[in-house]
Amino acid sequence: MPFRFEVLKQEQNTQARWGRIHTDHGDITTPVFMPVGTQASVKSLTPEDLLDLKAEIIICNIYHLYLRPGHEVIGRLGGLHRFMHWELPILTDSGGFQVYSLSNLRKVMDEGVEFQSHLDGSRHFLTPERAIEIQEVLNSDITMCLDECIPYPASYDYTLSAVVRTTSWAKRCKESKTRDTQALFGIVQGGMYADLRERSAHEIMDIGFDGYALGGLSVGETKVLMYEMIDATTPFLPEGKPRYIMGVGTPGDLVRCVGHGIDMFDCVLPTRNARNGMLFTSTGKVIIKNAQHAEESIPVDEHCDCYTCRNFSRAYLRHLYMAGEMLSARLNTIHNLHFYLTLMEDIRQAIREDRFAAFSADFLASEAVHDEYTT
Amino acid sequence: MPFRFEVLKQEQNTQARWGRIHTDHGDITTPVFMPVGTQASVKSLTPEDLLDLKAEIIICNIYHLYLRPGHEVIGRLGGLHRFMHWELPILTDSGGFQVYSLSNLRKVMDEGVEFQSHLDGSRHFLTPERAIEIQEVLNSDITMCLDECIPYPASYDYTLSAVVRTTSWAKRCKESKTRDTQALFGIVQGGMYADLRERSAHEIMDIGFDGYALGGLSVGETKVLMYEMIDATTPFLPEGKPRYIMGVGTPGDLVRCVGHGIDMFDCVLPTRNARNGMLFTSTGKVIIKNAQHAEESIPVDEHCDCYTCRNFSRAYLRHLYMAGEMLSARLNTIHNLHFYLTLMEDIRQAIREDRFAAFSADFLASEAVHDEYTT
Repeated sequence: MPFRFEVLKQEQNTQARWGRIHTDHGDITTPVFMPVGTQASVKSLTPEDLLDLKAEIIICNIYHLYLRPGHEVIGRLGGLHRFMHWELPILTDSGGFQVYSLSNLRKVMDEGVEFQSHLDGSRHFLTPERAIEIQEVLNSDITMCLDECIPYPASYDYTLSAVVRTTSWAKRCKESKTRDTQALFGIVQGGMYADLRERSAHEIMDIGFDGYALGGLSVGETKVLMYEMIDATTPFLPEGKPRYIMGVGTPGDLVRCVGHGIDMFDCVLPTRNARNGMLFTSTGKVIIKNAQHAEESIPVDEHCDCYTCRNFSRAYLRHLYMAGEMLSARLNTIHNLHFYLTLMEDIRQAIREDRFAAFSADFLASEAVHDEYTT
Repeated sequence: MPFRFEVLKQEQNTQARWGRIHTDHGDITTPVFMPVGTQASVKSLTPEDLLDLKAEIIICNIYHLYLRPGHEVIGRLGGLHRFMHWELPILTDSGGFQVYSLSNLRKVMDEGVEFQSHLDGSRHFLTPERAIEIQEVLNSDITMCLDECIPYPASYDYTLSAVVRTTSWAKRCKESKTRDTQALFGIVQGGMYADLRERSAHEIMDIGFDGYALGGLSVGETKVLMYEMIDATTPFLPEGKPRYIMGVGTPGDLVRCVGHGIDMFDCVLPTRNARNGMLFTSTGKVIIKNAQHAEESIPVDEHCDCYTCRNFSRAYLRHLYMAGEMLSARLNTIHNLHFYLTLMEDIRQAIREDRFAAFSADFLASEAVHDEYTT
């Protein structure tokens, strides 16, 4: 069955909605958080760990996989799912953001973007057509258009030119697509200018995609500005298609964004912070290396039933971290992803029961978000 | 039930025997390989991974745990089993070998050994009594005497002095022991002098221990010399007690040593080599980073049914290794430990069926050992 999205429930008092995405590799219940598996591995976890955590979809990056091991290698080995032994849906990012991150190592032209590999300095040229081709070879379930990401702050004229180019590239992406077993999402840009966000939303929507992403956010702007840009975009997006905000965010961001009508999220925060010893809990963050945890027999979060919290003390997790043991990253990653994925389940249930507004207010006032987390 | 060892079967044509060790934390079937969990973690694996691999006992190191997080911390948290969430037996090494490895940072005296921490240079003094106290606080199932390890080569006189001191320390270890829920193993030294090995074996046996270890082997001597020293020791050890060769060895060593009457093994080889990308297979070693594996869809070993081989190709394992992904170490470690633990199961079955001599000859002639592995 081809890609399809259903809104199962529009919450009464907010823009939050509960939905379901159907793909060839299974269904995804939205709002959904997608763990990040940049290089065809969610760092330190097996696919079975992710299934235990009830992850329904992961995101991989074509920029990295194109450079190493090469998308064609993965294609010859049966595609990305088989390569990494993950049978559920995969979304692939087009590489626009990664290439943008190379700053001095890239040059954007109308035809595409020339960049140097961060691995060996070799030169490459990524075009919209090439981005689609790579994703078709990888055979991911949801593919993304190549877009032009811009830094923050950026001038109006520069932002406008990126909107125009992103639209042009989106058309070329759609035109070059050859397989109807994969979904293709358009990406809305427009920097921090509400009128450009609106313009971009209309232009991308007019081309017509299976879903719509908000790109270029969470790049250094204030939270207030980020939500202004979301509100300058989502009203113009069709209700019947999933909305995906790229690279966002903290637990508080997830809850707020759902209230603004967002259905899909990805972020390195839970996994990267886990490796750095920062754990999300219902009572705020735990920095596991802190001396106060050296003899604590309690789990990271006494209200958590993840594998890590069921079996290990803060003292042991601190020991693993201080000793540089690899198991540290894994146990912490399990905990943080469990926190994120459980939060999404709680969000979905609140929407189903028409009490998302209250849930959101309670959560945002709780100790779980009393800290600002660094992205 | 206190510690007890039964020889269930003495193989007819060799010195190999099949046995069972009973401890408060469960039984161990011998000959047994003990995965190394130096710092209270078998690197990259959870206790559940080890159970899946059918590991029955692991070894931890009091040198490391004494320094970090501190044995008293672990004691206050309920002991080593609870600390690391491993409910099956644990053997703790006394630290003798680790302190020996510090070379210039240690000074051996009759009273004990003074050493500097490799972590922060702080000074510590380890005595036989202290080694026992630490192991009692950790509450491991099998504890080891503090011994004096010597480098290879070493003069006769120096080796003799280490034998004398090791015997003196073994007596003090036994005398200072206060808990009868833990087994205590004596360690035979004697360097590469057959008469000193025999002398040490007699002296240690006369003190009387729950099991006997062969220390100071696999320190740079030839294989021929190592087996000479084993044969200079085991005939003098009681048949009714387990025999443990410390820090040995390659797959071929395990098979050969079993034929020489050894019951217990530990070695970092399978786990350390896994992290370095060297995999044991039935057809010899696989260096996973080699370019020849870049597009291989076959598993590491087509005759292996471990989790890694059931689910992942050599190409994917190579990608993980080249990309520096943490999952690389874990999948490789699972495979290598499975190789070792399955080999031990095959050995036990061959002994039970009185065909160990043929098994040994076949294995030692097979491609599985056609390479020398670096320890």
